[in-house]
Amino acid sequence: MNSNRIEELVSVYRDGLFQDVLPFWLEHCVDREHGGFTFCLGRDGSVIDTDKGVWHQGRFTWLLSRLYNTVEKRPEWLAPAKHGIDFISKHCIDPADGRMWFHVTREGRPIRKRRYAFSEAFASIAYGEYARASANAGSAAKAQTLFDNFVAHRTAAGLALPKFTDTRPMKSFGVPMITIGVAQELRDSVGLPQADEWIDRSIEEIRRDFMKPDIPCVMETVGPNGEIIDHFDGRMLFPGHAIEGAWFILREAKQRGDEELVRMGCSMLDWMWQWGWDPEYGGLFYYRDVRDLPVQEYWHDMKFWWPHNEAIIATLLGYQLTGNEKYAQWHSMVHDWSYSHFPDRQCGEWFGYLHRDGSMSVDLKGNLWKGPFHLPRMQLFCWQILAEMRAAEGQGIGGKG
Amino acid sequence: MNSNRIEELVSVYRDGLFQDVLPFWLEHCVDREHGGFTFCLGRDGSVIDTDKGVWHQGRFTWLLSRLYNTVEKRPEWLAPAKHGIDFISKHCIDPADGRMWFHVTREGRPIRKRRYAFSEAFASIAYGEYARASANAGSAAKAQTLFDNFVAHRTAAGLALPKFTDTRPMKSFGVPMITIGVAQELRDSVGLPQADEWIDRSIEEIRRDFMKPDIPCVMETVGPNGEIIDHFDGRMLFPGHAIEGAWFILREAKQRGDEELVRMGCSMLDWMWQWGWDPEYGGLFYYRDVRDLPVQEYWHDMKFWWPHNEAIIATLLGYQLTGNEKYAQWHSMVHDWSYSHFPDRQCGEWFGYLHRDGSMSVDLKGNLWKGPFHLPRMQLFCWQILAEMRAAEGQGIGGKG
Repeated sequence: MNSNRIEELVSVYRDGLFQDVLPFWLEHCVDREHGGFTFCLGRDGSVIDTDKGVWHQGRFTWLLSRLYNTVEKRPEWLAPAKHGIDFISKHCIDPADGRMWFHVTREGRPIRKRRYAFSEAFASIAYGEYARASANAGSAAKAQTLFDNFVAHRTAAGLALPKFTDTRPMKSFGVPMITIGVAQELRDSVGLPQADEWIDRSIEEIRRDFMKPDIPCVMETVGPNGEIIDHFDGRMLFPGHAIEGAWFILREAKQRGDEELVRMGCSMLDWMWQWGWDPEYGGLFYYRDVRDLPVQEYWHDMKFWWPHNEAIIATLLGYQLTGNEKYAQWHSMVHDWSYSHFPDRQCGEWFGYLHRDGSMSVDLKGNLWKGPFHLPRMQLFCWQILAEMRAAEGQGIGGKG
Repeated sequence: MNSNRIEELVSVYRDGLFQDVLPFWLEHCVDREHGGFTFCLGRDGSVIDTDKGVWHQGRFTWLLSRLYNTVEKRPEWLAPAKHGIDFISKHCIDPADGRMWFHVTREGRPIRKRRYAFSEAFASIAYGEYARASANAGSAAKAQTLFDNFVAHRTAAGLALPKFTDTRPMKSFGVPMITIGVAQELRDSVGLPQADEWIDRSIEEIRRDFMKPDIPCVMETVGPNGEIIDHFDGRMLFPGHAIEGAWFILREAKQRGDEELVRMGCSMLDWMWQWGWDPEYGGLFYYRDVRDLPVQEYWHDMKFWWPHNEAIIATLLGYQLTGNEKYAQWHSMVHDWSYSHFPDRQCGEWFGYLHRDGSMSVDLKGNLWKGPFHLPRMQLFCWQILAEMRAAEGQGIGGKG
């Protein structure tokens, strides 16, 4: 990756964040009447459903606060972050049991709670980053409490509350994976004391139970002791999710200067790139079957925006940490495919849901799952990685990059 | 529809049933070791998941018994029907609350129960038809009990147990629709005393709460009093489901000789054909949005086998009852599109899951939702409708047909 390409990419990511993605959401999603954010937006940013997804109340609040803390102390970022914190505090927590909702009405009345405590996970990083931005001790305490609730919601075996009977216990990669990502954020923002311990424990669980070098792959769902479950659910691989987990590990490797963790993250990326990349049409499949049998989810081969965001980060970070040209090539492949299919040149931001061949399925910009998170996080993190690479080059220590 | 076309179609449906679909399943799905049926089959009929879906344990048992009762008393149909009844009786009902499971292991250990009592609905028609085949009073009583449990599972307002809070109560078209279909079957098989009452009540509910002539459409989900819910879930139309309901109504119209019900069923078909038919690639969309906004289910435009089965029945029945050439044309459109895309010329039976453009998504033959039901029911019912049309022609009373 030469310095011209680095400059070009810096401008794609940084300018995309500040001139396209962030303005798109700030213009369209802030609910000045009822508080919080309406993220269910059509192509042009019009609200197509006034309901509010709780995940993104936390995720957008985190993003705004993190920009304030790490890019520039702009009041126009802090004000909507406070707006998000206020809505979460007021409407997104069930007073009956302290658990968070998943989905509320525009006014903040509850619609649905889910088994997994991911609303808690994303709200905790919002409170944490907002605490750092506002020096608000109450927010820092809230971040800690929500993190505690998130990890307590796992049972001793690391399982979530069952949707199924206990005939066939299963656990998901998403739980240790998100634990790592959240603990990393809270370590940065509020110095979470248990961060390293939870990260170590989760990395160990992924290595022991989810990584299968003999296949090779990262499983998405296994038995309590890492058993492969030879049924539809158990066989389903989730390349985008595993690749997101891979860069959480690489980020930890970089922070700790731990070569063993570099190897672990790169293995996860290497394996799941092979499972995920579509050799025929390009882009990343959503699901695969580990025995190459038909996937139960009939939309398995669609191209969603967010696995591409995660793969763009993972390949760039892999390149930064190893200097292996393979990662620069993969980064180009996924970057180029993404930028030739997902951006909406007319109304801004990215489309989210394409057919296997890259044609459009739905042109909305947001719903309960799509909002200002994966894309702007990619833009922010990749810009920062590239800035580090440029600085290292400038100092003549860019041998690896 | 001239008599050549009728003869041609009789052979497509009847021969398809007895020479392709029925042998495919009987050869591959009967579990002689643990009882019941393994329906999760790959393209060639190999078992790709040994788990057993409870819906289809009932549905296939119903089909076999119905063939025995209405086509020919073949022991090779009755024996597997008994095989199905035995497995359902032994393994598919939770002794703790009398409710049925949705998903069990090969050995019959429970995996999952669902909110809706559709397992009960399909098992009740299995017991009913098997009671008629075997003159088994115990089975007839079981059919009655399961029907009672199915309808009792609706609350007073016709709602199922909530997945959501009660902030925004909703009810589904599927509940009155399946009540009609099940009551019709049980009236035939065991003379269910409350059949007409439940059918009347369900027809009335559909007419009052789900049919919206001013749009026009049949809603899939509404508020308790038929309110349109202007959110993703509430706006989602389900053409295949509504068209299945349409032919249940037309079947009732035919049985009762009720012209008003003919008009009702035809309206439902007319409206939802317009919503469902894909003018660009042909075939029926899975979901649409009533305001033509992006559908939340990103796989909304896929072509599934079963809505096509239901539309083939509905259009043929519409033609039989009205003589309106429009229905003969629509029948040709959906029949021809289906038969040029779904049948597996190499291994038999139909594929189930195609992309919008008709290309393959997954080539499996069965899973927890796809099994020997919609397709063989279509083949059986359409063959019988065509035989009636032929007989009417022969008697010179075929003016309408």
